Amino acid sequence: MAEHTVKAFDEEITTLRGLIAEMGGLAELAIGEAVEALTKRSQELAAQVIERDKKIDRLEAEVDRLAVKIIALRAPMADDLREVLAALKIAGILERIGDYAKNIAKRVSRIEGRLNSEPQTLIPAMAEIAGEMVHDVLTAFAARDPALAVDVIERDARVDAFYDSIFRNMVSFMMENPSTITSAAHLLFIARNIERIGDHATNIAEQVYYAATAEYVVDRLERPEN
Amino acid sequence: MAEHTVKAFDEEITTLRGLIAEMGGLAELAIGEAVEALTKRSQELAAQVIERDKKIDRLEAEVDRLAVKIIALRAPMADDLREVLAALKIAGILERIGDYAKNIAKRVSRIEGRLNSEPQTLIPAMAEIAGEMVHDVLTAFAARDPALAVDVIERDARVDAFYDSIFRNMVSFMMENPSTITSAAHLLFIARNIERIGDHATNIAEQVYYAATAEYVVDRLERPEN
Repeated sequence: MAEHTVKAFDEEITTLRGLIAEMGGLAELAIGEAVEALTKRSQELAAQVIERDKKIDRLEAEVDRLAVKIIALRAPMADDLREVLAALKIAGILERIGDYAKNIAKRVSRIEGRLNSEPQTLIPAMAEIAGEMVHDVLTAFAARDPALAVDVIERDARVDAFYDSIFRNMVSFMMENPSTITSAAHLLFIARNIERIGDHATNIAEQVYYAATAEYVVDRLERPEN
Repeated sequence: MAEHTVKAFDEEITTLRGLIAEMGGLAELAIGEAVEALTKRSQELAAQVIERDKKIDRLEAEVDRLAVKIIALRAPMADDLREVLAALKIAGILERIGDYAKNIAKRVSRIEGRLNSEPQTLIPAMAEIAGEMVHDVLTAFAARDPALAVDVIERDARVDAFYDSIFRNMVSFMMENPSTITSAAHLLFIARNIERIGDHATNIAEQVYYAATAEYVVDRLERPEN
């Protein structure tokens, strides 16, 4: 690339990375606030999470446009192209994480009364791990840190263990309290949404690892998912 | 582009489209067979769906590699770049549709006995619509047909209506039959997976529309999701 092209490219990549960081910050916030809305039964906070998700969607569209512009105008090669394409994929995954948080917020209004169930107390702890995974994977992306990406991937097993425990507990709770099944079913879906957020943070970590090293962190076929 | 570059590009794009068509065919098959495994309680068929999902994952990796190669070597502009990037996104979405079908197959073994519930009879009908959406959106991609893409998007409301109905029915069924709650919860998640498949077919339709017209089919913020 000519010198002025390199400079323009560097500036655009910095903007692209900034947009991803902003999306990540909003996604992490959405997870935390959606679960806070759940524990406090706050319709107001839930509505705020739902409304703010539009901002994440807009940022994704911005990343898409900028990535296409960079590829079309700068024709980046090898490492640079890998980074732009990783940004494109990561933005898509963050948008979905935002959707999962929004879906949690939407369910808040459908849960009636206080369910003094064990799962109810497990959900915030589970969400905290998932939120930290999202936070740390964005740090790994910003710092091009493949070791931190691997660390995030390894944490997903804890989220999955939480989910399995919540599923079993929730089924017992439903059997003993059939009148609360609607609410309990929504809680079960909330737990599932958090479990999926952990999976998506793992997917981002794989992209970060690949962008940083040009190698796949694990043959993805080996990774248990769903 | 020089003439030989144009020819190489055309060949590569044709290969890329072929890989997407193959992924789509496998995803559609996976949906149909996962639900057949459910209705027949066939562990064998379920295992086949789970095993065959690896092929979809491998095809996605192939699409990724080829798309990066095309961008890096041919530096496609405008329409062509849009098509390559759409293929990249569509492959990612098809991989997730495959995962949803695999997740349905995985749940087959956890459902005990025959549940003579209404949702049970609704699920195959719902899956048929979702499977057709996946089929038709791939036809729309192959034919660069934005009208068919819009038609697919409109059908998603029917899948959502099915899901709402199944959710309500399933909750009633659980209340009346608390001993079957574990199985019923898995059925509920299966219905949810099919609902998500409909959403993902809609996402592909949006990509097809954009690749074909350079316009967004709807402001995606307007579209209800989750």
